[in-house]
Amino acid sequence: MSIARSENAALHVVCDAVADSARRTAETYGGRALTDPLEAIRADGVEAVVIASPTPTHVELLSAAIEAGVGALCEKPIDLDIARVDALRERARSAPAPVMLGFNRRFDPHFAELHRRVAAGEIGRLEHLAVTSRDPEPAPDAYIATSGGIFRDMTIHDLDMARWFVPEVTSVSAVGFRQFSAGIAGLGDYDAAVLTLTGAGGESVVITNSRHSAYGYDQRLEAFGPDGLLQVGNVTETAVRAWGAAAVEATGPYQRFFLERYSAAYALELEAFVRAVRGEDVAYPGFEDGRAALLLADAAGVSAREGRAVNVDLTA
Amino acid sequence: MSIARSENAALHVVCDAVADSARRTAETYGGRALTDPLEAIRADGVEAVVIASPTPTHVELLSAAIEAGVGALCEKPIDLDIARVDALRERARSAPAPVMLGFNRRFDPHFAELHRRVAAGEIGRLEHLAVTSRDPEPAPDAYIATSGGIFRDMTIHDLDMARWFVPEVTSVSAVGFRQFSAGIAGLGDYDAAVLTLTGAGGESVVITNSRHSAYGYDQRLEAFGPDGLLQVGNVTETAVRAWGAAAVEATGPYQRFFLERYSAAYALELEAFVRAVRGEDVAYPGFEDGRAALLLADAAGVSAREGRAVNVDLTA
Amino acid sequence: MSIARSENAALHVVCDAVADSARRTAETYGGRALTDPLEAIRADGVEAVVIASPTPTHVELLSAAIEAGVGALCEKPIDLDIARVDALRERARSAPAPVMLGFNRRFDPHFAELHRRVAAGEIGRLEHLAVTSRDPEPAPDAYIATSGGIFRDMTIHDLDMARWFVPEVTSVSAVGFRQFSAGIAGLGDYDAAVLTLTGAGGESVVITNSRHSAYGYDQRLEAFGPDGLLQVGNVTETAVRAWGAAAVEATGPYQRFFLERYSAAYALELEAFVRAVRGEDVAYPGFEDGRAALLLADAAGVSAREGRAVNVDLTA
Amino acid sequence: MSIARSENAALHVVCDAVADSARRTAETYGGRALTDPLEAIRADGVEAVVIASPTPTHVELLSAAIEAGVGALCEKPIDLDIARVDALRERARSAPAPVMLGFNRRFDPHFAELHRRVAAGEIGRLEHLAVTSRDPEPAPDAYIATSGGIFRDMTIHDLDMARWFVPEVTSVSAVGFRQFSAGIAGLGDYDAAVLTLTGAGGESVVITNSRHSAYGYDQRLEAFGPDGLLQVGNVTETAVRAWGAAAVEATGPYQRFFLERYSAAYALELEAFVRAVRGEDVAYPGFEDGRAALLLADAAGVSAREGRAVNVDLTA
Repeated sequence: MSIARSENAALHVVCDAVADSARRTAETYGGRALTDPLEAIRADGVEAVVIASPTPTHVELLSAAIEAGVGALCEKPIDLDIARVDALRERARSAPAPVMLGFNRRFDPHFAELHRRVAAGEIGRLEHLAVTSRDPEPAPDAYIATSGGIFRDMTIHDLDMARWFVPEVTSVSAVGFRQFSAGIAGLGDYDAAVLTLTGAGGESVVITNSRHSAYGYDQRLEAFGPDGLLQVGNVTETAVRAWGAAAVEATGPYQRFFLERYSAAYALELEAFVRAVRGEDVAYPGFEDGRAALLLADAAGVSAREGRAVNVDLTA
Repeated sequence: MSIARSENAALHVVCDAVADSARRTAETYGGRALTDPLEAIRADGVEAVVIASPTPTHVELLSAAIEAGVGALCEKPIDLDIARVDALRERARSAPAPVMLGFNRRFDPHFAELHRRVAAGEIGRLEHLAVTSRDPEPAPDAYIATSGGIFRDMTIHDLDMARWFVPEVTSVSAVGFRQFSAGIAGLGDYDAAVLTLTGAGGESVVITNSRHSAYGYDQRLEAFGPDGLLQVGNVTETAVRAWGAAAVEATGPYQRFFLERYSAAYALELEAFVRAVRGEDVAYPGFEDGRAALLLADAAGVSAREGRAVNVDLTA
Repeated sequence: MSIARSENAALHVVCDAVADSARRTAETYGGRALTDPLEAIRADGVEAVVIASPTPTHVELLSAAIEAGVGALCEKPIDLDIARVDALRERARSAPAPVMLGFNRRFDPHFAELHRRVAAGEIGRLEHLAVTSRDPEPAPDAYIATSGGIFRDMTIHDLDMARWFVPEVTSVSAVGFRQFSAGIAGLGDYDAAVLTLTGAGGESVVITNSRHSAYGYDQRLEAFGPDGLLQVGNVTETAVRAWGAAAVEATGPYQRFFLERYSAAYALELEAFVRAVRGEDVAYPGFEDGRAALLLADAAGVSAREGRAVNVDLTA
Repeated sequence: MSIARSENAALHVVCDAVADSARRTAETYGGRALTDPLEAIRADGVEAVVIASPTPTHVELLSAAIEAGVGALCEKPIDLDIARVDALRERARSAPAPVMLGFNRRFDPHFAELHRRVAAGEIGRLEHLAVTSRDPEPAPDAYIATSGGIFRDMTIHDLDMARWFVPEVTSVSAVGFRQFSAGIAGLGDYDAAVLTLTGAGGESVVITNSRHSAYGYDQRLEAFGPDGLLQVGNVTETAVRAWGAAAVEATGPYQRFFLERYSAAYALELEAFVRAVRGEDVAYPGFEDGRAALLLADAAGVSAREGRAVNVDLTA
C-alpha cells in the first residue's frame, strides 16, 4: 500500500507464497501477482524489492537481489545465524544497488529530530543514551519459539538505535529477566532485559526492554551530554488532556503498537529507499548496520547467559 | 492538491481569474483550466466545487452552485453583509446538494476528539468553554482594511467553534483592544479582543484573541463541566523536549500558522465534503452555521462599540 | 498558630467572642485570652493585630486599630458597603502603622515568581492576563446569603490579582451565570462568572469563576505580552505521575482548597506584615487595594445586572 | 537548626571538633557546646545523637552511642571498610535504642508517595525500577580522593533507594565510565556509572549516575509493573512555565543540589528519628540497611573492575 501511494515509485510485482493473497493485493494496489520471489526479483522492469518474508529466506533473497542488481529493503534481522550473514558480507559490500535494512525507527520524525539536535551539538558530546522499549504484550509463544530470542527479535531494534548514536560499540553487558511469562520462561527465553553498552568514545547506553506494558507501546529515548538532555517521550493520538475527580492532566492511552506508532516512519523509510535506489544521496541503515545489530544481539545473549561483559569489535 | 490526492474525488476543473495560474495548477494536478468560475460551476461532469475566491464573490458563486445543483464547499465568511447572506438563506435551505462552510477547525483531530468526549458526557453537561486563538503576527494592513474587522475576519472561526459546542448562543458581550499595532488602530480595528457568550442552557464561552503571538500560532480549547475539564493545548511538530542550563522541559517552537497546524483538518474537511456530496451521512458545518457565525461577529462589533451585551436569536 | 511559629513575632493576645475558644487557643499557642476585640487592640504591648472576624466588624476594628496606632492585617473585604469603606479612607491614609489587606495570593510563591518575571520584562509590556479561579464546591447557602454575592465574596480575590498586575483598571464588563446550584440561584446570586477588565494602558484581563470544580481547587494564572507567555498551573501535592491502561501521565488530584493551596502564602503574608510593622520596606496590599477591589466587585455587579460595561476611576 | 525547630526534640549538646564553631552554633540554636563527641554522647540528658562527622569516625561514635544506650542517626556510609561494619553488626542488632542511617531520600515526600502507591499494588508486583541520579557538578578532586569511589560515595544512596523497593538484591552488574573529568579519571575513579541489579523475585533495577548535569540536580524514579508505571520527575521551585520565540512550555532550572531538593526530606527524617527514639512505631533505614548498601557498593566496584556480574547474599 505504501508503495502504491508513493509518488516516486510504482508497484510492479506483488509476491506472496499464498497465490490468493498475492492476487488480492495486486488487484487492490496494482502490479503483477507472483508466488516465486526469485522470479519477482528478476522480473522485467523491477528496479528494487522489499523483502518482508520470513527471516530464514532473507539471505537467499538478498543474495538474488544483489546478483540481479536491484535495490533491496530487507526486514531485520538478516538472519539468525551470524555465519550466514558474514558469508554474504563481501557481496553486499560491492552490491551495485542499495541494500537497506528495515530499521524503521531511524526514520521516526521524533527520534530523527532528537538525533539531528544531538548531531548539531545541542547537548555537547553525547555521554549517555537511554532507550526504553516495551511491547504492549508478548507475541504468541509459537512465534517466540522461532524468533531467535528477545535480543535478536526485539532488542535488535534498540541495538540499532544505539548504534545510530554510538556507531562503534565496544562492549555489551546484558541481564535477562523472567518476570511474568511462564510460556517464555519455558522456552528458555527472557521476557525482560537490561543492557549496558560501552562506546569507543566512553559513551554509555542503557536499553530497557519488556515484552509487556499495560499503558501501550512504550518507546522512549533520552540523550545526555555535558550541556543538557534531550528526550522523546511516548506519542499520543491527540493532544487532549483530562481533569477529573480521580486524576488530573491525564492523556492517552498510547497507541497500541508499531504499525500505529511508526506509521510515519514506515512511509519515510520507503521514501528514503526509493530515493536511494534512484541514486540520491540519502542516509539509511545498510547491510553493515544489520550485521552489527545482530552481532550485538548475539553478544548480549552470551553476556546474559555467562554473567560477564562481552567485548565486540564492529570495525573488523 | 488535496483534491488531486483524494482517493474518492477527481479534479475536474481548475479555475483562477489569472489564466496562467489556472493553467499551471491544472498541469501539475490535472483537470481543465478555466478563468470564469460560473463556467466552471456549470461544466460537464462537475459534481461539486470548492469556493476559495475573495469574499465578495462568495454569494454569487454559492448561488450559481445551488442553482446548478452542485455541492459547494465555501470559505468563510459567506459575505461581510448579513443582508446579502439572508437573501440567499432560503435557497440554501432547499439546495439539492450539500452547502458546506470552510470551518476547518471542526475537523481538527484534537478538537474533534475533545468534542466527541464532551458529547459522550465525560465532563457532564458543558458549563464553560474557553477558546484561545492568537495569530503569530497580523496580516498586512492592506488585508486588514478590507477584512471586515477582527470579529468577522478572525474571531468568526472561534465563534463557529463556540457554536459547535453551544449551538444556541443568546447573548454576546465583547471588548475590543488596541494593544500593539498602530496600523490596525489607524483602521479603526482592534488587534485583540475578549468575548463572553451566553448559551441558551446557561453555558458561558470565553474567546480570547490576539493578532500576534511570539511563540507561534496559539490555538487552545478548554471545556469545563460538573465532572471535570478537557483541554487541547498547542501541538508541536515533534515530541522532543530539551533540558539545559537556562530552561528545562522546553519544547517547540509551535507551528507558525494555520496551514501547518490544520493540515490534517483540511484533508479531513475535504474528505467529509466529498462524502457528503456522495450522499453519505456525515456531520459538517453548513450555510446556517456560516450565517450564525457572521451574525455573532456582527453582534460582537456592536457590543464592543457600544459597551453593552447584545442579545441574538439564532433560532429565528 | 502562624503567629506563634513566627520567629519575629510573639502572640500577645488571643481574642474570640466565644470565651472557651479563645482560652483553648491561648493555652495551645500562648498569649492572653480575651473576648472583647477593642480591649485586645488597646492591650499593653500590642503592636499589631490580625482581624479575621466577620466582615461587618472590620470597619470598627480597623478604625480602632488605626486610632490605637497599631498595625492591622484585615481579612477581605473591608466591608460590603463601599460608603462605609470610603468613610474610613482618609484616616486609613494617614494611619501611623501599616494597614494591610488579607489578599494572601500576592504572597503565593508561584504567582509571586510569575509577577516578578513580568515586572522584569520577560514577556514585554503586559497585554493580557487570564485568571482562572474555581472553588472545589460552593459554601453553604446560609454563608452565600450573607456573603455579598460572588463578586464581593469570591471574585474579589481575583480582582486584586488583576490589580496587582494592572493597578489602574478603567472598565469592568461582567456576565453572571447560574449553571448548577438551585440554592445559589434562589438567592439571586450567580454560581459562575466571567469578567473582562480594561486597564488604563489598554491591557485586557479575563477572570473566570465557578463555585465548583470536580478536580479540586482550580487556581491558574496566565500573562501574555509581545515577547511571550508565562503561566502558573495548578499545584500538586507531590510530583508522582501514573501510567495505566485507562490513562497515562496522570497526576493529582489537586489540593482541595485554599488552606492547603495557599499555606505558604499565608505564612509569607504574615511575615511581610510583621516586617512592615517593624518598619521594614516591604510591598503589601493596603487599604486602597482593599477599597479598589470592592469598588471593582460592585462595578461587576452592576455590569452583570444591567448588561453593560461599567467605567470606574480608581485614581479619584 | 532542624533539631532546634522540631516541636518534639530539644537541642542539648552541640559538638564540633572546632570549638569556635560549636560555640557559635550553640549560641544560635541553644544547647551546650562541646568538642569531644564521646563526652557529648555520654552527657547527662542526652537521649539521642546525630552523627554527621567524617566517615572514619562513624564506627567509633556509633559504638559509643550503642554502649551508652542512646539513639543514633548516622550519616552514610557507616564506614568504607565492610569488615569494620561487620565487626559492629552484632552489637547494632541488639542496640537498646534506634540506630538509624541517614538515607534521607526515603523521607522525600515525592519518592515516599511513589513507594506507598507501589506498596498499595497500583502497578501490580514491581518488575522494574529505574533510578536516575546526577549531581550538578563533581565534588573537588580532594574530596573524591578520600570518598571511597563513586559507588560508595554517590551510588550508595541509589542502592539504598533500590533496596527500599527490592530489599533482597541477589546480583550486581556494574559498568563504570570516564566521560568528562580528567581529575576523577586520574584518581582511578569513574565519573559516571550504570548498574543493573537483580532482585530475589526476578526484579530488575537500573541505576544511572553521573557526576555532572547542566540542568541541575537530576533525581528521578520510575517503577514499572504489570499494571502500569509510576514516575517521579525532577521538582521545580515554582510552577511557572514560559513560552517564548525560542522555546515553549519551559520551566526550571531545577534546584541545584541536595540541600534544596531534599529539605523536606531532612526535616521528615529527623522527625522520624525523634519519634523512633520516643518508642513510636515508625519505619526507618537501620544499621542493616547501611551495611547492605555498602556491600552492594563494594560488589559494584568488583563488577565494574572485573567485567562480570557479582552475586551477593544480603540474607546471610
